Amino acid sequence: MNKQQLIDNIRRKRSFLCVGLDPDTAKMPTCLDGNLFEFNRQIIDATAEYAIAYKPNLAFYEVLGTRGYEMFEHTVKYISDNYPDIFIIADAKRGDIGNTSKMYARSFFEQLGVDAVTVAPYMGEDSVTPFIGFDGKWVIVLGLTSNQGSHDFQMLRDADGRYLFEDVMSKAASWGNHGNMMFVVGATQGRMFEDVRRILPQHFLLVPGVGAQGGSLEEVARYGMTDECGLIVNSSRGIIHASNGKDFATVAATKAHEMQQQMETLLKSKGII
Amino acid sequence: MNKQQLIDNIRRKRSFLCVGLDPDTAKMPTCLDGNLFEFNRQIIDATAEYAIAYKPNLAFYEVLGTRGYEMFEHTVKYISDNYPDIFIIADAKRGDIGNTSKMYARSFFEQLGVDAVTVAPYMGEDSVTPFIGFDGKWVIVLGLTSNQGSHDFQMLRDADGRYLFEDVMSKAASWGNHGNMMFVVGATQGRMFEDVRRILPQHFLLVPGVGAQGGSLEEVARYGMTDECGLIVNSSRGIIHASNGKDFATVAATKAHEMQQQMETLLKSKGII
Repeated sequence: MNKQQLIDNIRRKRSFLCVGLDPDTAKMPTCLDGNLFEFNRQIIDATAEYAIAYKPNLAFYEVLGTRGYEMFEHTVKYISDNYPDIFIIADAKRGDIGNTSKMYARSFFEQLGVDAVTVAPYMGEDSVTPFIGFDGKWVIVLGLTSNQGSHDFQMLRDADGRYLFEDVMSKAASWGNHGNMMFVVGATQGRMFEDVRRILPQHFLLVPGVGAQGGSLEEVARYGMTDECGLIVNSSRGIIHASNGKDFATVAATKAHEMQQQMETLLKSKGII
Repeated sequence: MNKQQLIDNIRRKRSFLCVGLDPDTAKMPTCLDGNLFEFNRQIIDATAEYAIAYKPNLAFYEVLGTRGYEMFEHTVKYISDNYPDIFIIADAKRGDIGNTSKMYARSFFEQLGVDAVTVAPYMGEDSVTPFIGFDGKWVIVLGLTSNQGSHDFQMLRDADGRYLFEDVMSKAASWGNHGNMMFVVGATQGRMFEDVRRILPQHFLLVPGVGAQGGSLEEVARYGMTDECGLIVNSSRGIIHASNGKDFATVAATKAHEMQQQMETLLKSKGII
């Protein structure tokens, strides 16, 4: 999916919501018997009209071994087959030496057919660039993450007083462009979005951390939204595990709808729709 | 496997060789018909007497989807069942927010039963510490990697003139100890091992980059070896793809034996055996 298609979908659906498909078997209704795919299928059918993206996190599938990996594949295929206008992000946080990153890129883009993969930048250029150059595909580089540990290294200052995350963003941005690269910026980072936008005025940002992690959607929009929206805001637990009963899909739909409505208001106030 | 057992194995086998199980189907003999597990099985049987560790890199399995993931699982099980004194490293370069890293840790240590997992440090403390606290298991943190891109961020200087990789090593080391944490330092980094040893005098280092990537074993030992050895040196392509004919396993054994003999000389010259 290219940038214009993504923006068109945001305008049409009046939403920039990404639903994180991170199913925790301990929080799933017992009647599903640990079947992640069936859980996802019901969540997807219930929330697809409110979301423009889904983001399965690989960890939640790999923990179940081969069976989990298979359910991850089925989930991606189910979305592609039934909701072709949905942007699929494999939240994998990969990154390795060049020839290995190339393997990962082929795995995610050619084997699985997702639209985007999250990548950790620590290993530098040859770990990131193999994800660039696939038509309509995106690399999403970790910039300033939503967790407590983001302060350990991402906010170290360099000799010029710049934070590491700023160095990462400006250097990584030079390896691609705003049509094939996005950055992760946590919703918990508040006004830091202003600094991010000085470095990346046009890039889309993938924003986790709204909901369970405490980030505010209004604050993210105030400091991070561009005139093309430029935001994909993710919520995982706050939607998919809002109920652990048989009504989990209905409750997920309600939560997703609530977020879509907040997003519609924000898109309107910015004149984007 | 605890640290003393690892050191005992190094002394007994007169080797600190790790064989990287990164099978590239394009470089495998055609008679194996892309069967990574069968390729690995023959490589393992041929090289196990010269190696103290195996390091499968997940990317080379994931590229084949569920079937690849299954062959990764079979490979780990084959090593555990047949060579229980071998240290198994899942080269996965994972790392995510706390609850997700915990999923990965359970996946690798409990589901798969490997001894160690490589982890990228960019997301900080809560992305690394979930891998600590499993009895006899290790987290291996990326420190100074072997690739060209290692210069992009790892060698940025902070406000005190220290490299980022030095900040990463000293801070991460405080989250664990030299009985449950190792660091990746690329063989291509030469005299940088002296700086690393000032920060980490007792930690084991996992050293990729000898062979195809151009690192020198003698240089690594000169600047990086401790009186407990403290090194696990990896070779992948230089061993497993030394021949792409039917004799691949025999040639791999020859290459592994050559490295073991160089390592024996180095261990002797340091008085470790």
